[in-house]
Amino acid sequence: MAYTLKIMNQLTQQLEFVREIDKLKGVLRRSFLLDGSRAENSAEHSWHLALMALTLAEHANEAIDVGHVVKMVLIHDIVEIDAGDTFLYDQTGNASKAEREQQAAARIFGLLPAAQRDELIALWQEFEGRETADSHFANALDRFIPLLHNYDNQGKAWRENNVTRDRVIQMAGHMDKGSSTLWDYALNLIDDAVEKGYLAP
Amino acid sequence: MAYTLKIMNQLTQQLEFVREIDKLKGVLRRSFLLDGSRAENSAEHSWHLALMALTLAEHANEAIDVGHVVKMVLIHDIVEIDAGDTFLYDQTGNASKAEREQQAAARIFGLLPAAQRDELIALWQEFEGRETADSHFANALDRFIPLLHNYDNQGKAWRENNVTRDRVIQMAGHMDKGSSTLWDYALNLIDDAVEKGYLAP
Repeated sequence: MAYTLKIMNQLTQQLEFVREIDKLKGVLRRSFLLDGSRAENSAEHSWHLALMALTLAEHANEAIDVGHVVKMVLIHDIVEIDAGDTFLYDQTGNASKAEREQQAAARIFGLLPAAQRDELIALWQEFEGRETADSHFANALDRFIPLLHNYDNQGKAWRENNVTRDRVIQMAGHMDKGSSTLWDYALNLIDDAVEKGYLAP
Repeated sequence: MAYTLKIMNQLTQQLEFVREIDKLKGVLRRSFLLDGSRAENSAEHSWHLALMALTLAEHANEAIDVGHVVKMVLIHDIVEIDAGDTFLYDQTGNASKAEREQQAAARIFGLLPAAQRDELIALWQEFEGRETADSHFANALDRFIPLLHNYDNQGKAWRENNVTRDRVIQMAGHMDKGSSTLWDYALNLIDDAVEKGYLAP
């Protein structure tokens, strides 16, 4: 036996968490894969954002800690295991979102040993709070990627949900805080999508 | 226009990569989700490993750079977009695996600007080389998680592929190099799986 009882207890708690988060692979988003073949789940979406954080870091407006951003996007959607994915344009769902997600964070991160629980809850709150440079950039990535998905699959989720250009601009606008470069790129993408008929004007 | 032509060119290349890796969400592994409902894809698997690296780091045998391990597991399967997922117990597939994956790495990471391409190829080679402390731990996680999946879904992938206890021990054995604690836990899991009839003796 290479481990003490204390280490075994830590590991048992941590593996409870590792098992629990497997459920995020079953939480479906409104957005579709780039090829439009199926809805995306929140686990693979989080992986995609982490890779974007690694490769697009130079486009952040402010100095960021890339490793911290990566961690943040990896855990940012875990609360959806209990609270579900709330579509960006769903007003009723967004009203009760904060409370549902708080409870979810307490339960799911609470499976971990206390120090790790506190660290991950703080990280999730930082993402949601949008007050730090790292969270601005993480949120910018999270708003940017659905535009790319929608553009590439001819606006599948936009059309299914009757989303218009104004709403997209309104909801994606705070991307500008994290990365003006991504926001400029996004504006071009949005205008081109309207021109091509993927998005209602 | 907030960006120069140089930045725009960088971004265009990087977004080619971001788009390309969306395909990893369509590469299916032999392992099933914990609840056994469907096969797991390599993107969500990579996300799971990254969370394991963050939460299980204390169980590494040697001193590791957690951020580096996270990056490594996030990119370790990207070559499968071209080369496919090679099942651990497939001898023919594993013979040609190295060459297929080298070509895939050159093509896919080659979509990025040169400095990023070189960094990610080196990171992937480090994972495959299994010579550094970080890669020992990353590989240990990668070998550990299918055991947990198989155990929790009553050995679905083991039974479908006629895998025996000896083969599991043989293929998972190098987990010990990265984490003796995970390996000890795994051995208990394996023996319990045999006792419960999930895995052939």
